[in-house]
Amino acid sequence: MAWLRPCWPRCAALRWRPGGAAWAPQLGKAPGVAPRGPWLPHGGRGLRTASPGLGEVPLTSERYRVRRLPFSRLSPQDVAFFQCLLPGRALTEPAALEPCNVDWLRSVRGSSTLLLKPQTTAEVSQVLRYCSERNLAVNPQGGNTGLVGGSVPVFDEIILSTVLMNRIISFDTVSGILVCQAGCILERLNEYLEQQGFIMPLDLGAKGSCHIGGNVATNAGGLRLLRYGSLRGTVLGLEVVLADGTVLDCLASLRKDNTGYDLKQLFIGSEGTLGVITAVSILCPQKPKAVNLAFLGCQNFSQVLETFTTCRAMLGEILSAYEFMDEKCMELVEKHLKLSCPVRDSHFYVLIETSGSNSTHDEEKLNSFLEQAMTSGLVTDGTVATDDKKIKMLWSLRERITEALTHDGCVYKYDISLPVGKLYDLVTDMRARLGQSAKNVVGYGHLGDGNLHLNITAESYSHSLLDAIEPFVYEWTARYNGSISAEHGLGFKKKQFIQYSKPSEAIFLMQRFKAMLDPKGILNPYKTLPSSS
Amino acid sequence: MAWLRPCWPRCAALRWRPGGAAWAPQLGKAPGVAPRGPWLPHGGRGLRTASPGLGEVPLTSERYRVRRLPFSRLSPQDVAFFQCLLPGRALTEPAALEPCNVDWLRSVRGSSTLLLKPQTTAEVSQVLRYCSERNLAVNPQGGNTGLVGGSVPVFDEIILSTVLMNRIISFDTVSGILVCQAGCILERLNEYLEQQGFIMPLDLGAKGSCHIGGNVATNAGGLRLLRYGSLRGTVLGLEVVLADGTVLDCLASLRKDNTGYDLKQLFIGSEGTLGVITAVSILCPQKPKAVNLAFLGCQNFSQVLETFTTCRAMLGEILSAYEFMDEKCMELVEKHLKLSCPVRDSHFYVLIETSGSNSTHDEEKLNSFLEQAMTSGLVTDGTVATDDKKIKMLWSLRERITEALTHDGCVYKYDISLPVGKLYDLVTDMRARLGQSAKNVVGYGHLGDGNLHLNITAESYSHSLLDAIEPFVYEWTARYNGSISAEHGLGFKKKQFIQYSKPSEAIFLMQRFKAMLDPKGILNPYKTLPSSS
Repeated sequence: MAWLRPCWPRCAALRWRPGGAAWAPQLGKAPGVAPRGPWLPHGGRGLRTASPGLGEVPLTSERYRVRRLPFSRLSPQDVAFFQCLLPGRALTEPAALEPCNVDWLRSVRGSSTLLLKPQTTAEVSQVLRYCSERNLAVNPQGGNTGLVGGSVPVFDEIILSTVLMNRIISFDTVSGILVCQAGCILERLNEYLEQQGFIMPLDLGAKGSCHIGGNVATNAGGLRLLRYGSLRGTVLGLEVVLADGTVLDCLASLRKDNTGYDLKQLFIGSEGTLGVITAVSILCPQKPKAVNLAFLGCQNFSQVLETFTTCRAMLGEILSAYEFMDEKCMELVEKHLKLSCPVRDSHFYVLIETSGSNSTHDEEKLNSFLEQAMTSGLVTDGTVATDDKKIKMLWSLRERITEALTHDGCVYKYDISLPVGKLYDLVTDMRARLGQSAKNVVGYGHLGDGNLHLNITAESYSHSLLDAIEPFVYEWTARYNGSISAEHGLGFKKKQFIQYSKPSEAIFLMQRFKAMLDPKGILNPYKTLPSSS
Repeated sequence: MAWLRPCWPRCAALRWRPGGAAWAPQLGKAPGVAPRGPWLPHGGRGLRTASPGLGEVPLTSERYRVRRLPFSRLSPQDVAFFQCLLPGRALTEPAALEPCNVDWLRSVRGSSTLLLKPQTTAEVSQVLRYCSERNLAVNPQGGNTGLVGGSVPVFDEIILSTVLMNRIISFDTVSGILVCQAGCILERLNEYLEQQGFIMPLDLGAKGSCHIGGNVATNAGGLRLLRYGSLRGTVLGLEVVLADGTVLDCLASLRKDNTGYDLKQLFIGSEGTLGVITAVSILCPQKPKAVNLAFLGCQNFSQVLETFTTCRAMLGEILSAYEFMDEKCMELVEKHLKLSCPVRDSHFYVLIETSGSNSTHDEEKLNSFLEQAMTSGLVTDGTVATDDKKIKMLWSLRERITEALTHDGCVYKYDISLPVGKLYDLVTDMRARLGQSAKNVVGYGHLGDGNLHLNITAESYSHSLLDAIEPFVYEWTARYNGSISAEHGLGFKKKQFIQYSKPSEAIFLMQRFKAMLDPKGILNPYKTLPSSS
């Protein structure tokens, strides 16, 4: 397969993109081919679109030369049907559609002319039944905060938004089980739960706008996974509308249920390609009464790993985050954002958070661990925070790395899962491989989850640099049975890289599931799976 | 549908059956019809078999008049093929087959004439490819400890045992991820892990013989679910051989992997009907350094619930079990087993276990909670244990209820999931409904998981009593969106009750998945799903 590369404008025009996935256009002929390379906002050489003005996002279909699949075109009769079904909630105004046609990274853009805002599951069912009969493609959309181009149309797919499906259905303070509609915003749910002494089992940077239905549809990871596990364990039930309008009610609120196959799991992480999630039942943990944070310096990655095993043993059940970053990350945060690190002269930095039910106990545990880590030489310097202000300051050193990177030039971003012992070897190998051709090669991420954020910066975009990175990074990841998408999903941008993390038998089976559940392929087309043809 | 009831011999002949599922023969005509009613060992009126001697288990196919599906019959050429493929591990001797043809409850019996013991995934693949081509039915079998008749053949299915697939493939002491073959015995794995400071995330009464592959295939719950969550969250990867011999390698050892649909989830809890699990990757928690136990008395179920919410708030992250039993249970344990309860005169008893990384902290937390519970009047009496001997003694009061029940007469057993607030209402309603027609109606179980064990005893089996219990118990459970099988699965015995817990759309979809993955239906036929015809 030949790759054609665009000639990007200088990276100075790059906008800030937290955790954005790597991409660049692939000018293939197959429908739904996906891009690769660094995230850059505008089209260039080899693209059919003229280079647009700043802020205007090229159409995905043109930038990537995607071939439209043979869905029906929306007719006036269709629009009339939907306006009758959803009075005042079937919108065709460009101003209403614009923010739903573009992803929040401003990296992909569709050309949908109809935005539907159902309020009930029955309405979603009627919409999909009609679309299925008419062969109209549909793009389910939650908060539109996805990072891989999965949440906006590629062509003229009808946008089916869950924005008005924001009702909390029930919360049981004994079991901690919340049942709500799919369009509830994560942060609102968390606020609601906090009033009752609980929290959501997941937390994300996008929490202020992402929908719980979208979180589940993308199997979102985030900051609390180390402590509370993945959505595969905490989501207890789902209500899903299938492509033909069938309502699948698996909205159980039970911790245990072994009656048949667990169908809901297939929809968790399916990115809207198998069904539209309309309601969620989720198990919520107690709100912790105490939070402590330690920020430490280690001299090598072996010490980072040993510090992890030591703190996990000594902090045990109160450990809630173990993040790491290398010295290059710290340099960039200090240089570009003028943040000040209270821990000096270390090759690696570690952020450890505890959450528990007793502040005295938690502090004692943390102090014992720190004494052990310091006296054994694992850690050379460190600081501890218990008050909110200092906790936030220390978290910002870790959380704002992505932002600092965007000030460093053109960024090539990768979100990789690896066996934890191999996590930093990829950074070291990449640094050795690229030598002077890269400006900086940095590694940071959720070490406790085996999730590495590998970022490479350069003064400007370069074909040869991209060639040096890809497919090397994917091959390296595959060699150690890693995942080329730890938590962002595949969406539009990464779907053709799936074979680096999944064997052909698995991909084939996924395609069969897709064909069975959505035989016309109307649900979120051009996403998640490579074309089966 | 008409039910014909057998005339059971007196219940005095009943053997002890820990956690056994309820059943009695249904004499329908459809293939694979499943039984209902209390567990009793021998056939009777209306059955074609003569009443067998004690210890002899009637053939399932005869007792339940199941119609054999049109699979091929095993030929000498087939046996020769398998003996060539698995030299010395393709057994036809009745002595070798007998224990694999009967379940450990001695409630169902098949008539297989071939037992295969592959050692490798490649061998399993070759076996299934051959069986698929020859249309030979296969009964995958782990430790054969299932309680719903899912682990033994109904007719002459070839038994495919994982007993020789007992190799630990890897354990990573940094991530706590274990990868092993499916035939590893749970207790052996736990012993192996304990030497390295870890434990398995699940624990069962059958741990000494059950296989991890079988645990995953049945989505086993058990004693640690409250603390470490279900296998849906802790199982990170599976290797599965499909019906046609295709090896599906999803044996990832990653906490995060969002590349496509999570296929492994479909096989978790599918009871061997969709594929044969050959290897498992599982996330293992740290071994706790301290374990404490409190045994408390409450005067009503509201106090049991409030004690749960209080202890969850105050014990937080160290709470590892919250079990309850009613006074009837305690009476039976004391009467039949001569156990002595140190807590007196309560209508309900609660067992609370903590597991943590610091014994001093854990005891302090437990003491604070106990003081609060006693002074607020939630709890009227109680005792605490920190040493192993007393911990075991107190656990035995809870764990031996099942045994005590078998001494009380004929037992009707139900394993139900319910919203935790409704948990005991079913017992109360059942007691009121049955009045003097039952000897005892008792409730106990994993309150923290919303899992009720409802047991009804009578002097002897009675059609009218069964009529009073069923379908009332299933309808009641369905009314509150409960599950008629919390953790035991459906297997052969409960498959036709699935509609009480799953809507027809879900059952239909399950049948489509089965048809897609196993079009000839050779994998564990007559199990899990009602016939789709």
